[in-house]
Amino acid sequence: MRKYLLSTFLRFLPKRRQTLTNNISFTCAMANSKFEYVRNFEADDRCLPNTWIVVRIDGRGFHKFSEKHEFVKPNDKRSLDLMSKAASRVMTEFKEICLAYGQSDEFSFVFKRDTDLHKRRASKLMTCVSSLFSSAYVFHWPQFFDIPLKYPPSFDGRVVLYPTTQNLRDYLSWRQADCHINNLFNTVFWALVLKGGLTNSEAEQRLSGTFSSDKNEILFSEFGINYNNEPQLFRKGSVLIRCKQKKGEEVEEGRINKEIVILNEDIINDSFWIKHSILD
Amino acid sequence: MRKYLLSTFLRFLPKRRQTLTNNISFTCAMANSKFEYVRNFEADDRCLPNTWIVVRIDGRGFHKFSEKHEFVKPNDKRSLDLMSKAASRVMTEFKEICLAYGQSDEFSFVFKRDTDLHKRRASKLMTCVSSLFSSAYVFHWPQFFDIPLKYPPSFDGRVVLYPTTQNLRDYLSWRQADCHINNLFNTVFWALVLKGGLTNSEAEQRLSGTFSSDKNEILFSEFGINYNNEPQLFRKGSVLIRCKQKKGEEVEEGRINKEIVILNEDIINDSFWIKHSILD
Amino acid sequence: MRKYLLSTFLRFLPKRRQTLTNNISFTCAMANSKFEYVRNFEADDRCLPNTWIVVRIDGRGFHKFSEKHEFVKPNDKRSLDLMSKAASRVMTEFKEICLAYGQSDEFSFVFKRDTDLHKRRASKLMTCVSSLFSSAYVFHWPQFFDIPLKYPPSFDGRVVLYPTTQNLRDYLSWRQADCHINNLFNTVFWALVLKGGLTNSEAEQRLSGTFSSDKNEILFSEFGINYNNEPQLFRKGSVLIRCKQKKGEEVEEGRINKEIVILNEDIINDSFWIKHSILD
Amino acid sequence: MRKYLLSTFLRFLPKRRQTLTNNISFTCAMANSKFEYVRNFEADDRCLPNTWIVVRIDGRGFHKFSEKHEFVKPNDKRSLDLMSKAASRVMTEFKEICLAYGQSDEFSFVFKRDTDLHKRRASKLMTCVSSLFSSAYVFHWPQFFDIPLKYPPSFDGRVVLYPTTQNLRDYLSWRQADCHINNLFNTVFWALVLKGGLTNSEAEQRLSGTFSSDKNEILFSEFGINYNNEPQLFRKGSVLIRCKQKKGEEVEEGRINKEIVILNEDIINDSFWIKHSILD
Repeated sequence: MRKYLLSTFLRFLPKRRQTLTNNISFTCAMANSKFEYVRNFEADDRCLPNTWIVVRIDGRGFHKFSEKHEFVKPNDKRSLDLMSKAASRVMTEFKEICLAYGQSDEFSFVFKRDTDLHKRRASKLMTCVSSLFSSAYVFHWPQFFDIPLKYPPSFDGRVVLYPTTQNLRDYLSWRQADCHINNLFNTVFWALVLKGGLTNSEAEQRLSGTFSSDKNEILFSEFGINYNNEPQLFRKGSVLIRCKQKKGEEVEEGRINKEIVILNEDIINDSFWIKHSILD
Repeated sequence: MRKYLLSTFLRFLPKRRQTLTNNISFTCAMANSKFEYVRNFEADDRCLPNTWIVVRIDGRGFHKFSEKHEFVKPNDKRSLDLMSKAASRVMTEFKEICLAYGQSDEFSFVFKRDTDLHKRRASKLMTCVSSLFSSAYVFHWPQFFDIPLKYPPSFDGRVVLYPTTQNLRDYLSWRQADCHINNLFNTVFWALVLKGGLTNSEAEQRLSGTFSSDKNEILFSEFGINYNNEPQLFRKGSVLIRCKQKKGEEVEEGRINKEIVILNEDIINDSFWIKHSILD
Repeated sequence: MRKYLLSTFLRFLPKRRQTLTNNISFTCAMANSKFEYVRNFEADDRCLPNTWIVVRIDGRGFHKFSEKHEFVKPNDKRSLDLMSKAASRVMTEFKEICLAYGQSDEFSFVFKRDTDLHKRRASKLMTCVSSLFSSAYVFHWPQFFDIPLKYPPSFDGRVVLYPTTQNLRDYLSWRQADCHINNLFNTVFWALVLKGGLTNSEAEQRLSGTFSSDKNEILFSEFGINYNNEPQLFRKGSVLIRCKQKKGEEVEEGRINKEIVILNEDIINDSFWIKHSILD
Repeated sequence: MRKYLLSTFLRFLPKRRQTLTNNISFTCAMANSKFEYVRNFEADDRCLPNTWIVVRIDGRGFHKFSEKHEFVKPNDKRSLDLMSKAASRVMTEFKEICLAYGQSDEFSFVFKRDTDLHKRRASKLMTCVSSLFSSAYVFHWPQFFDIPLKYPPSFDGRVVLYPTTQNLRDYLSWRQADCHINNLFNTVFWALVLKGGLTNSEAEQRLSGTFSSDKNEILFSEFGINYNNEPQLFRKGSVLIRCKQKKGEEVEEGRINKEIVILNEDIINDSFWIKHSILD
């Protein structure tokens, strides 16, 4: 709303017809220009050009939030779908985001390396993404959960720059490897608790110091679970990319709206990147 | 959730028993530590100590948002009350915020100058505030509006540091003077349009180049409105401070919850600050 | 030199008379404007307004440098005087510096808190000071040392901001307390080595874990030295401030040139600041 | 010198034997730890990893400096050689610099993109380079000039990051194109003044609005100078790289010391980079 009025005020403020200043309002306008120096205290935080800008948002206090809202353990599909829904809102609004990757209560948004959105100002980018994601999460909650939202959740955000495509891919690999490690742990942990009857601390103790191979073994021998058959959504997280489908073509799988497709694939190996050529 | 598991992973990751690495999962854990170098690309953006930290959030595209949701012109009390409600949520969660000031579609949050919240990291502070504010705005919407929310709104955010209390007060004065200027303009503008029958562009033209005194005059002579009798909420905006009420005392006016009081007072002059001694 | 020519080039570069481009030079001018985008990679590092800007420079490898140039132990007056001479050059060139404090191989320069020199760009301020200090150190060397300079020394630099005058005074107190602690140690250490006949490592061992009182005691009982009678230059370091002397007045003590006075006084207590009212 | 003593002080400072604090010195040590909080006001300014770090230094007030020291116009070979000598000192000390490029009164130093020197702290890198360059300039002055140095010169510095090798090459091309443009102008300008008898302002007016082709034409038709036959040193500037010569091999041309070679070649086209493979 402010922009709309600016032209009017601009020619107004600097006037110096002091004879007319006897009324409060004019004094106040003067005051405004007197106070306006505080604007200069704002720092310029533009991101280095020609680098990949990643905004990652992370759920705050989601351990408690997931308990209060009775999330299914170890993975709540509704919650992951809602995360992706909120992320797709962000991508729909910010066309300069070429890819998003999410797992658990976090989501990473990758801006095109030559984006000039908001002059690449880090503050703007991270707050716009955090804000819209959070707002969309609450807005779409009823589409995914029957239980009403008990209190507004929040997500912190940060900006990280990656100079090369390899660095960016390593970042995304890091997040997907993190997804794997956490999910394997959680899958065994909750099997031990929910099916094996252990307490939380017994389960944690049992897993303490174990390797992935040990965890796979426990899952298979004690619970008949082959970890590799668990849903890709849980093991790989979600990648959101823009549709390339043209008129008349068949609708792509995993399409969340007109523009965005969700995939649950490995993004550590080259094949995903060769197929989709998103970062080229 | 991640923190909860960290102790377990920490002792796990650095192990070097390569003889066991034949399974995919372990490879992946290795991969994680291989990728983890990308963490170092995150910059340290801690705010200078002993300065006032202000986080200001601003509605994005609220001109359109207010039209789509049929906000009353020139001021929609429901919308302002919802803004304050969302702000009070932020203050309730972040105890280190000692004062918030809002008007129109913006809100400024002042952190205590010695706060060490999130190690004073600018990213954390601005995204946590933007995110929670947005989330709370959507969450509380139905308490203030009968019309359902059509799409999730968002608010950008920024951090600005003020070294002295005078600088901080000038900042707050700047925002309140801005409130006054905008509100006076909007009051006349919408009187001309809604009561005077002018089109938007006729009204804008009529006001172009006028001073505050002219606007007061138009309001009074043409519409019988004494601007100074307009509600303080519209003319002064809203200040949120923490209650100081003790047991047995009467409940303060303007109290929004157990902790927070909303005031619609002048904060440019000294009297407010002398009375409440918030910044001392 | 560049500035001098800029007006000429500016109207030259953007021309688009492509018919004339057949010669190498013009191609190159075009190339320049083609390459000029790299300018945008420079970050804006302006210091927060209304804060005290301190630039501190520190000798690099001065342990070795002092040995190679046979500095007297524990203090070499020539070296300290040369440091002050170089610092006075810096103050003479940068009028916005209101005070400098030096000890050992370091010097801190305090810019007026409202300075707008080089738009308060941190890079400019710290490199200009480091560069001129180093250059002046070499330039004035022969005035203080008979032995020729064996190789060019260097000084690193940094910018630190202090929001309040108390913070700034604490910074200066920190440096003067550091001077005291180091000098007391060095005085005893070199007494033990040069007069007491201990090796360096024996002396270090002897002093390990001792308090100031112990060191004073060693100095007094073993070497007849009352530490408090040692020169103020060594115990307090050097403060450079601008002269306030008016025509006809007597020349102030410690005057290094027309503008600058050197004092070797306590700056931790209030009296210095009350007397000179530099930071008000 | 401070580092040498640190171990001793560290175990000393935190002691709390308050019974012994009656002497001044101990109070002071306490004071030091009391003041030490000011350290936290220093910001972390580490450069983004995996980017090319360029430090460029620039002569301050060199128009005046060159006049006071009677530099030959349009180019003073002694001055350029001294610049290169100072730059070679910087490269000899900082092994992480893989290339330097200089022209006129400026020099750019390129650090290896994976350097971890001074933890990549921008302040350290730019001040160390500016300081050593300035110090070496004064130190080596007598080897290049008969006239004594009249006052200490200085050079400001800055750090710029380039994410890709192409960006870095464009940066270097920009500087070399700038060298060309300036040198062509200066060559004609001083021909008009020194040989053509024009005043400075007449010469400037004559050149105002001319293209490179025009300037080449003036040089050739009026002064019989073929610009392309001017020395490469003036037209191309100086590139400093590290020697790759092995034992028994012939000494490379342009060698300035054991380690560094100076070349006056085109660095805009690929051939230089193919030949030397410095940035690979």
